[in-house]
Amino acid sequence: MPDTEKVCLVIGAGEDTGGAIARAFAREGLTACLVRRSARAEALEALAHSIREEGNKAIALPTDARDEKAMVALFEKIESEIGPIDVVVFNIGANVRFSITETTARVYRKVWEMAAFAGFLTGREAAKHMLGRGRGTIIFTGATASVRGSDGFCAFAGAKHALRALAQSMARELGPKNIHVAHTIIDGAIDSNFIRENLPEVGKKRDEDALLNPEHIAQSYVMLHKQPRTAWTHELDLRPWKENW
Amino acid sequence: MPDTEKVCLVIGAGEDTGGAIARAFAREGLTACLVRRSARAEALEALAHSIREEGNKAIALPTDARDEKAMVALFEKIESEIGPIDVVVFNIGANVRFSITETTARVYRKVWEMAAFAGFLTGREAAKHMLGRGRGTIIFTGATASVRGSDGFCAFAGAKHALRALAQSMARELGPKNIHVAHTIIDGAIDSNFIRENLPEVGKKRDEDALLNPEHIAQSYVMLHKQPRTAWTHELDLRPWKENW
Amino acid sequence: MPDTEKVCLVIGAGEDTGGAIARAFAREGLTACLVRRSARAEALEALAHSIREEGNKAIALPTDARDEKAMVALFEKIESEIGPIDVVVFNIGANVRFSITETTARVYRKVWEMAAFAGFLTGREAAKHMLGRGRGTIIFTGATASVRGSDGFCAFAGAKHALRALAQSMARELGPKNIHVAHTIIDGAIDSNFIRENLPEVGKKRDEDALLNPEHIAQSYVMLHKQPRTAWTHELDLRPWKENW
Amino acid sequence: MPDTEKVCLVIGAGEDTGGAIARAFAREGLTACLVRRSARAEALEALAHSIREEGNKAIALPTDARDEKAMVALFEKIESEIGPIDVVVFNIGANVRFSITETTARVYRKVWEMAAFAGFLTGREAAKHMLGRGRGTIIFTGATASVRGSDGFCAFAGAKHALRALAQSMARELGPKNIHVAHTIIDGAIDSNFIRENLPEVGKKRDEDALLNPEHIAQSYVMLHKQPRTAWTHELDLRPWKENW
Repeated sequence: MPDTEKVCLVIGAGEDTGGAIARAFAREGLTACLVRRSARAEALEALAHSIREEGNKAIALPTDARDEKAMVALFEKIESEIGPIDVVVFNIGANVRFSITETTARVYRKVWEMAAFAGFLTGREAAKHMLGRGRGTIIFTGATASVRGSDGFCAFAGAKHALRALAQSMARELGPKNIHVAHTIIDGAIDSNFIRENLPEVGKKRDEDALLNPEHIAQSYVMLHKQPRTAWTHELDLRPWKENW
Repeated sequence: MPDTEKVCLVIGAGEDTGGAIARAFAREGLTACLVRRSARAEALEALAHSIREEGNKAIALPTDARDEKAMVALFEKIESEIGPIDVVVFNIGANVRFSITETTARVYRKVWEMAAFAGFLTGREAAKHMLGRGRGTIIFTGATASVRGSDGFCAFAGAKHALRALAQSMARELGPKNIHVAHTIIDGAIDSNFIRENLPEVGKKRDEDALLNPEHIAQSYVMLHKQPRTAWTHELDLRPWKENW
Repeated sequence: MPDTEKVCLVIGAGEDTGGAIARAFAREGLTACLVRRSARAEALEALAHSIREEGNKAIALPTDARDEKAMVALFEKIESEIGPIDVVVFNIGANVRFSITETTARVYRKVWEMAAFAGFLTGREAAKHMLGRGRGTIIFTGATASVRGSDGFCAFAGAKHALRALAQSMARELGPKNIHVAHTIIDGAIDSNFIRENLPEVGKKRDEDALLNPEHIAQSYVMLHKQPRTAWTHELDLRPWKENW
Repeated sequence: MPDTEKVCLVIGAGEDTGGAIARAFAREGLTACLVRRSARAEALEALAHSIREEGNKAIALPTDARDEKAMVALFEKIESEIGPIDVVVFNIGANVRFSITETTARVYRKVWEMAAFAGFLTGREAAKHMLGRGRGTIIFTGATASVRGSDGFCAFAGAKHALRALAQSMARELGPKNIHVAHTIIDGAIDSNFIRENLPEVGKKRDEDALLNPEHIAQSYVMLHKQPRTAWTHELDLRPWKENW
């Protein structure tokens, strides 16, 4: 099967990291299936359009990743209408900071639904389809909060820890079935829309390579997918050279 | 204030570990407030009764720990009618094992609600009341799955990892406010009703001290509460001498 | 056998933590055998004297803990002349800070000899004698550097990581032989001679319990020794309530 | 400067992993400087020869990596006579297994000298030369024992833990000086001479990709060196898909 028939599904295909990952896999010849919730359908279509303008394949598929039925349908639609899903990247963040007493139950639950429950649905549906073929790569995006709880991050660290536990549990179960499950720990500020609008010294930081470049993050995702199975990586960290950690 | 007016609240006061912890704090002079959901109200009352028969104080307060309103009301009722809550132990487990593809969304969510979301509600309400007094101890019960994801444990490990992230985040925030937040890692089979009914060689194992004795677990919880604040422990593991780890 | 015949051997019985640990075990009725190198024999004898003045038993046994023959002889002498060694605490630190290029081979080796190699000799000789009786407690003192390498700490963190690996390896081997091996992570400034002389705000810090009190550290060591074997702790951290971690 | 003038120095250039790493960097155009102790000079020269037969550059430089003077001289000789050292890989293992009581002081010290002290000398000399240029990559090879002590591995785990502490300390110090320090965790049996001679089912294992292929390990080392500095990896694990971990 030529790689052009294979699909890379990116859940959380925002303008920054998720978009760069989708673009990178599209450049490798895979069809990028892009997912964000409907409220961002326009940005999603713009991303798909810009990937197609490079001569590669991309399809915007707005979906609420927390909705089980919608996610089951998404995977089935892609498999039946677009191509076999060879790579799945779960990239939804939900970084919020509140003191414990100011963390509402609604926030705590919502952060988990976005960053952990949606990751579970993604991982499970990916596993279902990949197990039938006995191949595939599933990558979960983590953060410093995946390995360390901090003042103000009970919700975010909770969800990210849960996602890491999912990735590790799936890797131990699915590795011997030829499905490569990996988890990244992104440690540092990403050169993103958010940073560009909120970090005053962003220009200086970018000039000295002190911000994580989404394209460079994406390179490591493609590398993980291409690793021969005699030497798979489950977890790696990614941070700028100047980062204090 | 004499310790007899102080309260130790145990969320998840089952017959085994939670019950032993409640009993141990009651023996220290605290009033044990015991919580399980209503369906187990009878067993809860029996536990309270047996603590009172020892000459100590215990009250059964059946509550669904996943219900935010009920939990807010529980803490307020105890504080206004029983006494200041000096110790809170969160001890709800939810150990299930399913392969990733057989883990339903309902199970994944339910395990999180029991073992992590209820822990968050417990921790937050405890913090609210303890911050006012500038003192208190909050202990979360963890397991091997708190630090390691394994084949079949994506739901359980996810919830336990989230609970550990909560404990660590709260400890970093609340320690400097004189609230001692601790997390235990229980590693091994507990001499529990479940084990007694399902493990054939339980008698032999108990005879050679190869099962975690709930009373001995409880001793470490009381120790954590009594630690002087110049030398607080945030995390400790507990396992039988014969355990293979 | 009454505890008065049993020995607690403290390798690294300095004026602060090691001394407080020795004193605490002596108060439990054990004979404290105190070890520092000969150059500190006077301070060691003063410590032994002050423990005896409390009505407890203590003996100063100046020894170079890096000297294999001397350590073998030390254990044999204690076992044959004083009593069975029931507790061994290894408490030698070697905290130095140098940039990597300014770390001499001599320093790197010496730090390892003091903080890791001497720990190995201590652990091995303790194991030899304890295995014959099928009982005993061995506690190794760790630090933040035991779990985290930092700028300037390649020598110290290397030695402390090695000591932790020793403790964990020994615990897995010797636990099932009824020897309790534990490792503590001391995280924060100890109220020590060094701090008293070098930290300007030490009085204020002590007043607000912001320094680790050696006596309170010692309480946790005694607690570890007394834990019933159905619920042993291998590792716990100790830090002041105000510590930023 | 063309990459052909740059040097990749491999300390521990054995026939398997170290050799494959050297060969991979030579294929990237770097001059491979190969180090093993003199007793293996013949095998080392054979490796250099086979790399040169591929049309690439390689030089055998037998050296005892535990000898400070020899190591200082080695780095100076390469820098002055061969080219600037752009990549250094430390790859010396020392896997032995003994129960604690059967671990001699000689073995404990020797394992540390080979796997940790030699790593320190390597890292320090590399840092000295790279700091002057403000660039370079230093990679340390770790193992499961780098993160976990186990029954029988007090010496090996101690040395590997120390090496990991060195890597982490150096990364935190040297990252902001544009020197990329990484640490790999090799988890599983490598398709090596040792395995080929000692593992009966080696053929079957190799056929199903169940052994770590040294060439595939080497790919990850080259990848680490090529990572743009906005997204550097400090640590990654490598294991075969079938590995039980």
